[in-house]
Amino acid sequence: MSPSKTTPQTSTIIQAKKLEAFVSKAFQTIGVSESDARITAAVMVRADRRGIESHGVARLDRYVDRIRKGLIDPKAKIKLVKETPSTLFFDGRNGLGQVIGNQAMKACITKAKKSGAAWAAVKNSNHYGIAGYYSMMALEHDMIGISLTNSRPLCVPTYSREPIIGTNPISLAAPANKEKSFVLDMATAVVPIGKIEVAKRKETKIPLGWAVDKNGQPTTDPASVLEGGGVMPLGGPAEFSGYKGYGLSVMVDILCGALTGASFLSLIEKTIGGQPAPSNIGHFFGAINIESFRPLPEFKNTMDQFARILKNSTKASGCDRIFIAGEKEFQMEEDRQKNGIPLDKKTVKILQSVGRQTGINFPAT
Amino acid sequence: MSPSKTTPQTSTIIQAKKLEAFVSKAFQTIGVSESDARITAAVMVRADRRGIESHGVARLDRYVDRIRKGLIDPKAKIKLVKETPSTLFFDGRNGLGQVIGNQAMKACITKAKKSGAAWAAVKNSNHYGIAGYYSMMALEHDMIGISLTNSRPLCVPTYSREPIIGTNPISLAAPANKEKSFVLDMATAVVPIGKIEVAKRKETKIPLGWAVDKNGQPTTDPASVLEGGGVMPLGGPAEFSGYKGYGLSVMVDILCGALTGASFLSLIEKTIGGQPAPSNIGHFFGAINIESFRPLPEFKNTMDQFARILKNSTKASGCDRIFIAGEKEFQMEEDRQKNGIPLDKKTVKILQSVGRQTGINFPAT
Repeated sequence: MSPSKTTPQTSTIIQAKKLEAFVSKAFQTIGVSESDARITAAVMVRADRRGIESHGVARLDRYVDRIRKGLIDPKAKIKLVKETPSTLFFDGRNGLGQVIGNQAMKACITKAKKSGAAWAAVKNSNHYGIAGYYSMMALEHDMIGISLTNSRPLCVPTYSREPIIGTNPISLAAPANKEKSFVLDMATAVVPIGKIEVAKRKETKIPLGWAVDKNGQPTTDPASVLEGGGVMPLGGPAEFSGYKGYGLSVMVDILCGALTGASFLSLIEKTIGGQPAPSNIGHFFGAINIESFRPLPEFKNTMDQFARILKNSTKASGCDRIFIAGEKEFQMEEDRQKNGIPLDKKTVKILQSVGRQTGINFPAT
Repeated sequence: MSPSKTTPQTSTIIQAKKLEAFVSKAFQTIGVSESDARITAAVMVRADRRGIESHGVARLDRYVDRIRKGLIDPKAKIKLVKETPSTLFFDGRNGLGQVIGNQAMKACITKAKKSGAAWAAVKNSNHYGIAGYYSMMALEHDMIGISLTNSRPLCVPTYSREPIIGTNPISLAAPANKEKSFVLDMATAVVPIGKIEVAKRKETKIPLGWAVDKNGQPTTDPASVLEGGGVMPLGGPAEFSGYKGYGLSVMVDILCGALTGASFLSLIEKTIGGQPAPSNIGHFFGAINIESFRPLPEFKNTMDQFARILKNSTKASGCDRIFIAGEKEFQMEEDRQKNGIPLDKKTVKILQSVGRQTGINFPAT
């Protein structure tokens, strides 16, 4: 996931706890239990705290809308379908992705404590927010966490002109000692579709190599991408090994879609008779108990060494800092914990509108 | 791994079996047991059969040289250090990477049959050839296979000018029914260093975005890359999300280096007092029993559907075919099984030289 570093047109600043309480209450008015609503709100606001606004509360209206339309079941209880000594397989029963993800990852961690490592796969789920939320759950147990999900097709395979593969993120989190944890949380596309939309609104060009037009040709015109084109997989054109990003996207879909029986590729969010259908996406979680391989303190000290070697390496001319995956987001989180979360005008409007619909007053100026 | 589609200056064509026999015999003259030599030869020649010449028999002189210098122990027996219900941890004891990889992956598959899924990590190993060899071992057992390795630092983190991260490949193999198996086997760098070397020899420019010069600036001059610069991680510059490729490379190193206690990042193949040292690289293997989640025939049929949806999608203008990861390599393998493996002049010279050193006649014209 590419965090947006600047929040355009900050309209209000709100404390994370207040924002969570609002989101949680709004969900409770439409049939979500208090505990499930709290979890969903925590996952969503964590995205805003980490500066990944595209996956935060700005999506509240979409979730609310899907629940109201019967496309997400607010009362679903996930069901364990199959279990082996080191794997779990859940049916999410079309519940909220955040609730399902939380429960599946929790069970995965518990199993890894016994068996050394574990996988949990899920079918029949919905958008679960930032992949990194679930991989980071492992950090509290001093484990390595993995979180993958398939997603709606926005990305174009190498040599194709059809957006039929997802931006399917890969997240892995690993704890360090004195340094920050390593938290990779990346879409397998070059850029999120949101960046193309922003460029169109601003009437600016996009760099050649981000996306293709309806003929499958790389383009700098954001409008032509949104009119029947698509984002390119990580790497971009074949000359820059875009087929690797394409391969990574399909790899994630194999684990989340093919292995679970969830929907996959272009079949995700296909309409049924012109009407939107449940997402039926799949997730795949992993937890690795570090002590299965190496004493935990040794591992954590090595992780510190990793961070130091990378950060102390000689900077490219014109650059003054090298980052570790997740570092910018942790910094953002600290800042927003102190100073509150800035929300842009559009997001405030969304929250106010949900507030009106649900009768919960949005607590911002 | 980016397969080289054309073999320049084909000097001879040889049957895979003959080539394997030669490589195996050569290893046996320098202390490798017959069974270990056969395995090593099979892994190496599989790379040539699949068109990944950079990881095939062209490396024979380097392996032989390292054994002769005492940098690889030809008689090493790998040791199981730790075991849990779903994990295995091996000390490779500085043996041949191919022998170690083969044994670790075999054990991983056996464990996955009992526990549903398994991981095997290895420290104290050496270059193991193509990552895909080991992930593909799982296919014969109708499992999903995963294979990762860290490697010598050739790649530059985003905003750095030092090549301190490896091209650390990611491989995942998954079986299909009527279609070819999906076999992703990709370095996490934009391109292999070999492509830069070829451009320098041919005195051609390289595309901007493949590599940086000694100041960390993107360059089209291959010479300036080889003189103190480095290859960029998948994605290229930050604008094209090169930090994702950088994150993937470090992710692989965490699992292969930090988790095992093997060497990592810029510490790999560091000289000791000016002398080359043992590699001490690490590998990480995974095997997932598909039946832990979903009936095997259903999974395989879905994999067929994946292949059909992807391959039948509308081609970009000017393109006539969409590929699945591994497809080109399987096609190459079929072709070379029938018609033999073409070897270029340089490789023939390497093999002839090893032949002279070991007293084994290289059987080519």
